[in-house]
Amino acid sequence: MMQKLAEAIRKKEAPVCVGLDTQLTIVPKRITDAAYKVYGMTLEGAGEALAAFNRDIIDAIYDIVPAVKLQIAMYEQFGIPGLAAYRDTIEYAKKKDLIVIGDVKRGDIGSTSAAYARAHLGRVQVGGATFRAFDTDIITVNPYFGTDGIEPFISVCAAENKGIFILVKTSNPSGAELQDRRSEGYPIYEHIASGVNVWGEDVRGGAEFSSVGAVVAATYPGVAERLRELMPHTMFLVPGYGAQGGTAESLRPYFTDQGEGVIVNSSRAIIGAWRDEKYAHLGTEAVGEAARVAVGEMIVECNAVLQ
Amino acid sequence: MMQKLAEAIRKKEAPVCVGLDTQLTIVPKRITDAAYKVYGMTLEGAGEALAAFNRDIIDAIYDIVPAVKLQIAMYEQFGIPGLAAYRDTIEYAKKKDLIVIGDVKRGDIGSTSAAYARAHLGRVQVGGATFRAFDTDIITVNPYFGTDGIEPFISVCAAENKGIFILVKTSNPSGAELQDRRSEGYPIYEHIASGVNVWGEDVRGGAEFSSVGAVVAATYPGVAERLRELMPHTMFLVPGYGAQGGTAESLRPYFTDQGEGVIVNSSRAIIGAWRDEKYAHLGTEAVGEAARVAVGEMIVECNAVLQ
Repeated sequence: MMQKLAEAIRKKEAPVCVGLDTQLTIVPKRITDAAYKVYGMTLEGAGEALAAFNRDIIDAIYDIVPAVKLQIAMYEQFGIPGLAAYRDTIEYAKKKDLIVIGDVKRGDIGSTSAAYARAHLGRVQVGGATFRAFDTDIITVNPYFGTDGIEPFISVCAAENKGIFILVKTSNPSGAELQDRRSEGYPIYEHIASGVNVWGEDVRGGAEFSSVGAVVAATYPGVAERLRELMPHTMFLVPGYGAQGGTAESLRPYFTDQGEGVIVNSSRAIIGAWRDEKYAHLGTEAVGEAARVAVGEMIVECNAVLQ
Repeated sequence: MMQKLAEAIRKKEAPVCVGLDTQLTIVPKRITDAAYKVYGMTLEGAGEALAAFNRDIIDAIYDIVPAVKLQIAMYEQFGIPGLAAYRDTIEYAKKKDLIVIGDVKRGDIGSTSAAYARAHLGRVQVGGATFRAFDTDIITVNPYFGTDGIEPFISVCAAENKGIFILVKTSNPSGAELQDRRSEGYPIYEHIASGVNVWGEDVRGGAEFSSVGAVVAATYPGVAERLRELMPHTMFLVPGYGAQGGTAESLRPYFTDQGEGVIVNSSRAIIGAWRDEKYAHLGTEAVGEAARVAVGEMIVECNAVLQ
């Protein structure tokens, strides 16, 4: 799947991912009104509003970006109807040939990680039948449990041609409290990065990128060069661009020498672009149009780094 | 909520929690057959089987234990119907006056942790109305993101009288890879433990236990004394008892000097007791009866430590 992602990035000339971290506060009134009219101001109404908003965004950007990333927490807060919107958005995006990243940050002891892997990447058995619960292509994984909490995900990746991004360096300021602690002369995030490389090499075969990717935030460009060195065949998911403070200029060291191996995520700056005065000329509540223009600009910015 | 848990443990004289990590392989044929008869071999059928099994367990044990813990991954793998069974089991257990721990191990950057906190401990707003998505009393939280990823959970705990257990030392063998790394002379899990203590002291007031608890596995009794010293007013959720290798004899250092502050979880050994030859005399597929006897024995074992 990481190879497929690398190819899609090349083909669309866009190392960019649109984050569908959809909150109700970002959904325009015409969409919430339509949803509440059918379902009332209920969890079902919220779920329908999120799904409808996501369809507008996906319709507007599917031909110019390789992937979307869904932050599951934004759906989970609306319970079952919210998670139905999560599932339906995944299906909708896949029909438009987008690669779908589930930003779930799961991770647990082995037997539990195996259940999460079945839930988000694989299949689950019920009597003689098998089903897919949430059919994402790639998910994010938390490394706190170490190898035996990671391996079940990698096994399912191999069986189902899927991928994972393991948290290495996160975008939030407090991430440093644990991740930057030094141990045996190196920060924890470098130790995790070495683990990602080992786990990935075990399954990479001859591929350019292994199924085991890494989350490396845009907000710490100073460490990107070292992390790329430690993880030469690892796809980087780069959050924290735009609203969180990361800039295109600082992205160069995240890429491989060949200018590959990176997918930069932006959420609020794209899906909330319709509220930005900069895009007001596109029309009132022009959700899709503004998102398309905003992500187009971001693609240009990111590609400029590689010139 | 941690005070309420401490009181419930005292009242029932049982520092024990039953883990509803329900998998289909542990559900007897009469229950799956009944579910499949109505819903077919579908995700809905699986969800109904899990919920029905859980009701049998809860009915059998609610008067002798203070709490149940649901491992959400076991439900998430069955998608929307699985998560509906998770939600329904929470409601059922609360009606029986059990404290319900959601073993969700969520954690992310601040704005995302806030959404998870609303999902599992708080309320979410839809227009003018508010709803609870998954109404657990306490959840487990992953500390990889540091303070700003933890704080949104603590805020919701304060507003809603709920609690969290932060992962400090997990029960799986590979947990040591990251958690036992030494930094500034101490293992990472001690640094996390100090964080748990600070976060908890900020909100404890005069209470015996703060709303911020810790996960400290039964499989590492050698470190319990030190962790209790670092976290004197912290409730410990102790997994890894029984099937994972932890024994009652080694539990003493987990408790405070007053013999409090501990809730030991056992999942498979209780909910799967009906398959154990030891309990065969209770009848065929005696799910509830076997669970009750098994947890009764476990309570005696755990209390014996305190004599």
